[in-house]
Amino acid sequence: MAEIKEECGVFGIYDLDGGNVVPSIYYGLTSLQHRGQESCGLAVSRTAGKRGNVQFYKDLGLVSEVLREDTVRSMEGDIGIGHVRYSTTGASVAENAQPLVLSYVKGTLALAHNGNLINTPQLKWELIQNGAVFHTTTDSEVIAFHIARERVHSRTVEEAVLKTAQKIRGGYGLVIMSPRKLIGVRDPYGLKPLCLGKRGNAYVLASESCALASVGAAFVRDIEPGEILTITKDGLKSDKTLAIKQHAHCVFEYIYFARLDSTMDGVNVYEARLRGGKSLAKSYPVEADLVTGVPESGIPAAKGYSEESGIPFGLAFYKNSYIGRTFIKPTQEERESSVQLKLSVLKPVVRGKRIVLVDDSIVRGTTITNLIHMLKEAGAKEVHVRISSPPFLYPCYFGTDVPSNDQLIAASHSSEEICRMIGADSLGYMQSSYLEGMVKGLPLCKACFDGKYPMEIPDQTEEYMDL
Amino acid sequence: MAEIKEECGVFGIYDLDGGNVVPSIYYGLTSLQHRGQESCGLAVSRTAGKRGNVQFYKDLGLVSEVLREDTVRSMEGDIGIGHVRYSTTGASVAENAQPLVLSYVKGTLALAHNGNLINTPQLKWELIQNGAVFHTTTDSEVIAFHIARERVHSRTVEEAVLKTAQKIRGGYGLVIMSPRKLIGVRDPYGLKPLCLGKRGNAYVLASESCALASVGAAFVRDIEPGEILTITKDGLKSDKTLAIKQHAHCVFEYIYFARLDSTMDGVNVYEARLRGGKSLAKSYPVEADLVTGVPESGIPAAKGYSEESGIPFGLAFYKNSYIGRTFIKPTQEERESSVQLKLSVLKPVVRGKRIVLVDDSIVRGTTITNLIHMLKEAGAKEVHVRISSPPFLYPCYFGTDVPSNDQLIAASHSSEEICRMIGADSLGYMQSSYLEGMVKGLPLCKACFDGKYPMEIPDQTEEYMDL
Amino acid sequence: MAEIKEECGVFGIYDLDGGNVVPSIYYGLTSLQHRGQESCGLAVSRTAGKRGNVQFYKDLGLVSEVLREDTVRSMEGDIGIGHVRYSTTGASVAENAQPLVLSYVKGTLALAHNGNLINTPQLKWELIQNGAVFHTTTDSEVIAFHIARERVHSRTVEEAVLKTAQKIRGGYGLVIMSPRKLIGVRDPYGLKPLCLGKRGNAYVLASESCALASVGAAFVRDIEPGEILTITKDGLKSDKTLAIKQHAHCVFEYIYFARLDSTMDGVNVYEARLRGGKSLAKSYPVEADLVTGVPESGIPAAKGYSEESGIPFGLAFYKNSYIGRTFIKPTQEERESSVQLKLSVLKPVVRGKRIVLVDDSIVRGTTITNLIHMLKEAGAKEVHVRISSPPFLYPCYFGTDVPSNDQLIAASHSSEEICRMIGADSLGYMQSSYLEGMVKGLPLCKACFDGKYPMEIPDQTEEYMDL
Amino acid sequence: MAEIKEECGVFGIYDLDGGNVVPSIYYGLTSLQHRGQESCGLAVSRTAGKRGNVQFYKDLGLVSEVLREDTVRSMEGDIGIGHVRYSTTGASVAENAQPLVLSYVKGTLALAHNGNLINTPQLKWELIQNGAVFHTTTDSEVIAFHIARERVHSRTVEEAVLKTAQKIRGGYGLVIMSPRKLIGVRDPYGLKPLCLGKRGNAYVLASESCALASVGAAFVRDIEPGEILTITKDGLKSDKTLAIKQHAHCVFEYIYFARLDSTMDGVNVYEARLRGGKSLAKSYPVEADLVTGVPESGIPAAKGYSEESGIPFGLAFYKNSYIGRTFIKPTQEERESSVQLKLSVLKPVVRGKRIVLVDDSIVRGTTITNLIHMLKEAGAKEVHVRISSPPFLYPCYFGTDVPSNDQLIAASHSSEEICRMIGADSLGYMQSSYLEGMVKGLPLCKACFDGKYPMEIPDQTEEYMDL
Repeated sequence: MAEIKEECGVFGIYDLDGGNVVPSIYYGLTSLQHRGQESCGLAVSRTAGKRGNVQFYKDLGLVSEVLREDTVRSMEGDIGIGHVRYSTTGASVAENAQPLVLSYVKGTLALAHNGNLINTPQLKWELIQNGAVFHTTTDSEVIAFHIARERVHSRTVEEAVLKTAQKIRGGYGLVIMSPRKLIGVRDPYGLKPLCLGKRGNAYVLASESCALASVGAAFVRDIEPGEILTITKDGLKSDKTLAIKQHAHCVFEYIYFARLDSTMDGVNVYEARLRGGKSLAKSYPVEADLVTGVPESGIPAAKGYSEESGIPFGLAFYKNSYIGRTFIKPTQEERESSVQLKLSVLKPVVRGKRIVLVDDSIVRGTTITNLIHMLKEAGAKEVHVRISSPPFLYPCYFGTDVPSNDQLIAASHSSEEICRMIGADSLGYMQSSYLEGMVKGLPLCKACFDGKYPMEIPDQTEEYMDL
Repeated sequence: MAEIKEECGVFGIYDLDGGNVVPSIYYGLTSLQHRGQESCGLAVSRTAGKRGNVQFYKDLGLVSEVLREDTVRSMEGDIGIGHVRYSTTGASVAENAQPLVLSYVKGTLALAHNGNLINTPQLKWELIQNGAVFHTTTDSEVIAFHIARERVHSRTVEEAVLKTAQKIRGGYGLVIMSPRKLIGVRDPYGLKPLCLGKRGNAYVLASESCALASVGAAFVRDIEPGEILTITKDGLKSDKTLAIKQHAHCVFEYIYFARLDSTMDGVNVYEARLRGGKSLAKSYPVEADLVTGVPESGIPAAKGYSEESGIPFGLAFYKNSYIGRTFIKPTQEERESSVQLKLSVLKPVVRGKRIVLVDDSIVRGTTITNLIHMLKEAGAKEVHVRISSPPFLYPCYFGTDVPSNDQLIAASHSSEEICRMIGADSLGYMQSSYLEGMVKGLPLCKACFDGKYPMEIPDQTEEYMDL
Repeated sequence: MAEIKEECGVFGIYDLDGGNVVPSIYYGLTSLQHRGQESCGLAVSRTAGKRGNVQFYKDLGLVSEVLREDTVRSMEGDIGIGHVRYSTTGASVAENAQPLVLSYVKGTLALAHNGNLINTPQLKWELIQNGAVFHTTTDSEVIAFHIARERVHSRTVEEAVLKTAQKIRGGYGLVIMSPRKLIGVRDPYGLKPLCLGKRGNAYVLASESCALASVGAAFVRDIEPGEILTITKDGLKSDKTLAIKQHAHCVFEYIYFARLDSTMDGVNVYEARLRGGKSLAKSYPVEADLVTGVPESGIPAAKGYSEESGIPFGLAFYKNSYIGRTFIKPTQEERESSVQLKLSVLKPVVRGKRIVLVDDSIVRGTTITNLIHMLKEAGAKEVHVRISSPPFLYPCYFGTDVPSNDQLIAASHSSEEICRMIGADSLGYMQSSYLEGMVKGLPLCKACFDGKYPMEIPDQTEEYMDL
Repeated sequence: MAEIKEECGVFGIYDLDGGNVVPSIYYGLTSLQHRGQESCGLAVSRTAGKRGNVQFYKDLGLVSEVLREDTVRSMEGDIGIGHVRYSTTGASVAENAQPLVLSYVKGTLALAHNGNLINTPQLKWELIQNGAVFHTTTDSEVIAFHIARERVHSRTVEEAVLKTAQKIRGGYGLVIMSPRKLIGVRDPYGLKPLCLGKRGNAYVLASESCALASVGAAFVRDIEPGEILTITKDGLKSDKTLAIKQHAHCVFEYIYFARLDSTMDGVNVYEARLRGGKSLAKSYPVEADLVTGVPESGIPAAKGYSEESGIPFGLAFYKNSYIGRTFIKPTQEERESSVQLKLSVLKPVVRGKRIVLVDDSIVRGTTITNLIHMLKEAGAKEVHVRISSPPFLYPCYFGTDVPSNDQLIAASHSSEEICRMIGADSLGYMQSSYLEGMVKGLPLCKACFDGKYPMEIPDQTEEYMDL
């Protein structure tokens, strides 16, 4: 039940046999919806058609809200990309929906981007000082503009992408569509995921492998950190100029962002969370009658805790799936009498029991406090909380929207204090040093927990920030 | 994953202290949304106000779609009722949304109705032969009209309700709002549920106890079969004239309709399903490595099967909760390459395992066939299917939308044939005689399984059906 | 520029050759839109089809907003009726949209109604005392209910309509659709208009002749006051049982409601207004350089004034036709600096001139005051106001929404006072005794001007009014 | 009733006293709505605020549809611009709505543009060859990009505007908002209009003077052809570097585009059309009983014809103002029986008369043919058509959407042939040489009539056109 937000999910497909890829983009985006619910969009083209003949549609809303049947059925092409974007607030955010579709020196360039750059202000400054204009406040437009500028002096679009990638710093997974090519790019550290699939003669790029499966494509491999993969009618071409040895995969993909049924960089997400739960059981054992997880994200780790400890696993909550985005929040006064709207306790499951309650993180502490209270009201004798990640202590610069320190209960309280504040009988956080075990030794970026960033973070001066 | 549809859910509230009940109706309907997703609505009034001064709003759509913040915040009253209705197709269904709000001899009458009558045509015929007009094709309007007609010669509205209830036959849970009274009525067999809760000085009526909890009300008791409960400023008044000894509670509430966290007629729904799973384990034991359930409805029975058999319980599927109502279905051609949109298998959970797969019912057999195929593709060695209800063989006349025989795989195939057709390694259906055990001996209507209806079903003549 | 509101417009059509009448209803309603902008709707059926098989659609909004192409193209039938309703405020008015479509003893009854009854409370009381329920607060539902009740004991629907018409009192134009018949009814005084047209083998009923022309139908004749005209596959049948000698046509149809190109009861509306202007010129001559009218309704009378007086006629105002229904009104503060949004003066037309400004009525006096001010600002030397109707002094009970006395400037001020208040150089109101001249001697209801109602107006007791 | 389309209307306002200008932009755009109905938008800022702090809103639709009360009331600023755009078809046109709002080297630049450039492809090519990207296909984005690029090396934004204006060729009226300045620019020929008004301490720029009046501003003067007018907190600054002697005002503003109550370059639009009608009367006199115009655009010229000829002027048509944008067109089959939907004839006005029918142009000839037929059906003895403009023969490159030759009846038929084809008794077109008389000698661009363009029109090569 983490309240951490991911930036986005990307999808791309090129059917060398000329089949219409629009339905696949729709299903792929539906499978990536968990990565972003604010806006979505797609752009498609015919590689055999006139350069620049691109159809696109994007708007605020879920895939099922934005991409209505008539829109989807009216679009057509053998190459295309799509994007889902996470939910923020603020005016005119519709302008920031992706994919970006731009005309440039070689026709039309479309781009979808997951992640965050740390040198956007400088890159934007450089362009703007040369007279550029920007329509949006996205990193994606800065990247696209640099590609366009490099394209003028490059032999190929992939060469322009490489030159651009040599300048941008941060975590990113990009899919780029030019009139005849589909390109996937992953940052040199591998902070953001991107993988390749194949269905017949069609190549698919996606932030997660679950999206490959959703369109019937077989998983081929992950795009390597620093790799630029270009798909043309002649097949695949890989450029690894940017590859470095020091990788740093975002740990939060495994803890929270990615779907249970995805596998990233060789590590299955469900298994990682299961191992996380087992590790918690070893570090913080307790005598109890039942292990349960906070739906949905705490459940696999709870299952792991159960397997390791031998304490039976069960589901203790009912989740109301009809709490929509426009749900009218109870006012404070109403709240006092109205609980159990989103989650309610299955009393027969918890009555008289000592319970281990597993969740993936604690942000403000409000939710877990309510759940513990509900469990005890329902007759639980004890509630032992186990968290499958360390406390957040540092900001993320690569696209994860970690709340600011004043909202983080762990920023100003010890584990013992938090335990008391939330009303738990005991509390155990996953230790940072155990995280690599969870992912079978994969090198991780755990900066949000330990402050060790894989690259130097530049000062964000006032002047730049204004852009 | 049953594809059986329930008619409706009802909610009513009267705050004797005069507090505004609109937010409570909104939260109550949100908690009953699983009982009906086609349309919803509410009607509220001030008991101290002018007779007939009722505000109401209803439309096609989910609660979160129909009842927007400005609408909800603009309504006000100390007494009110609400309704959710299940999804059908057909023109002008908006006209059939509830509550019905009518002016009659004593001001305004509002009515919300869950269930189905079997003598509607006769009741309508009687009115129409006397010159009545009808705006909708609902049973509810027929009931309301009879109440209004009886009201003319009755001392009180509850007397008119009683006279009407003496004429209507079928399964029903009704909430009725007159200018100064809130009335709940339950059919004499107890086919449809209705319960009473209390929060401070406010009385609440709801189809399920989960809706009481959602507004902070404590469960008081079930309305008894055949009871008419009238709530006025002076408190409760119960009329049991209609009570009979022979009860017949709808078994499908326990198998599928009701929410896990509800308790009906003394039987907790989660526990009933758990017992159902245990009973299956006794009747159809099998050697296996994992018990899992089809989300969401098969999961509690799977847990029961696991507890009884000692085979570990686990979650084998990921469910995409973003498949909205407007989801664009893949065409046949697209479907061949796109699976796993709604449910996908967690491969590490099932790989190499012998699996017991529990679901609540089989209708056409299409879904279970797909799931078995997906499990085997993911590496499951065996898949043993256990169904926590007997095969459907008879139509329901009381409000459950059982598919017609030609859509029911069990209507024309033996259990062995079905097992082969769906690709399972074994198949076991719950036996009809075990159902009472599931609900601790509560008398049930199991007519959809055994054809024994609690009351005589009249011929549905052509002449009547036209009305 | 009257701010008086009409109740409604009705339309009916029956194509004996079986042609689809839906497009004609759409065009007919578009032509009657000036009679009501709040809501609209239509109902159609196949006379050869199953009884009760009626399609209908209605909602709040203009014809062009409510009846979208897909709706219109999806409906079909050889018999149908339609309705436009005027704009009111208030909650849940969508419920009051017409046509009413009801099931009754003989299948489906649809009804569209223009006008107002004066004995609705009694009629409703009678029904409600016998146990009836009402869904709306319209007279139309009361009429329909009485027809349904009478139908039980009548040989034909037209007989039931006659018995109902014998009970209802007021002004009305009705179109009624039963499974095989289209019926038009007009009140005995002829207060409300209704006419008959024919196109090929199709009969058309409409509130105004302009709607006949819009569907290519030739005008046949007006329905006579008190006539019930029944159209079946065998042709026309007229019943004049209700006919009386004393007619009283609503004068406001000629002054304001009806379209310029309509002819009612033998009097062309444009010619009536032209004659009104001539009469004003005779009664209130003045030396001037230009006669102009307030768009749109004052223009024909201005032309008449010009013809009679010999003073040149011209257009002095530009009207912005993009001031939509959702136009954001300037606040008081904004208003001070923003004038001329809806109407602006053509300065070259008025500069240095003495102007006769003709309008059809003065309600509050605000608009005319502004216009006179604008004309003078634009350089007009004098502005002489001529009003083509007498001052309102009495309420209308037959469907015209005359503002209450405290909003009527004429209720508390003499003509001289008004002239001074609005800043005119002279002011002349049409005299009531001249109105018959305007309509070539046609007997009129002028009760809003002289208080002489054609029938006795009952007391509106509190008890009844509540219903 | 011309079917010629104008590009756009622009509006800008800067209140030096700090008052909120949003309501004024709303009213101003409402007054300019006749210049464009496809899309509209506005952008506002606080000059005292942070650079780049701009609110904007734009979408497809009329002002009353796009700018709803909550949107308008939520925006605020002391400087702002607005835009209305004409109706085209095609996908994704929402992207082309204006104002453009861009971030550039000095914060935020907003731009609204009326007109068309003839060297856009070259200007875009130049940028794109240097690596630029474009989000839209509008001239406006090209202009904005050039301003941004020039701004890098300019001391002020007005200097950058000047350098840009020196490169762009065509007809244009621009309003530009930078963080602290409002700038108006008009092309050197004066093809497109732009004028200045003042209300208290607020300066207003608008395409037409009617928009000044709508916000209570007094007309100050027209922006001169080639003038760049910069409004800062210190007042006005005018740059006339670009001024040339040879002016060429678009004749179509006077014939059709502009509102009757506007005055442009010293010529009142109503008076111009009146003179046009008088000139027609001199060139093509005829014996007749009535002069009438096709609503709305033919009416002033008809009045002029009447004044010159002495034949009485009258209104012969009723126009249905409820024919909305979503009006469902009759199919061919329906059309045969349905005429008079939009315009209907006032029979008493025309019966037995010889009529002079004045319109502003003939495009396909369909409309005028129908109107003549309707007049004769209504009893007109003769119909003499007079057109207040010469026949279109040449394309316009400056923003007027003249239909292509194969749609222009005059392109392939002589005046005599047209007269016969439309069923008129005589036909007279305004002669091109008389047009200057209509506008009191103002130098005109009449290229659509005589092919004499004020500047050289470049070849539009395939390569450029793709961009």
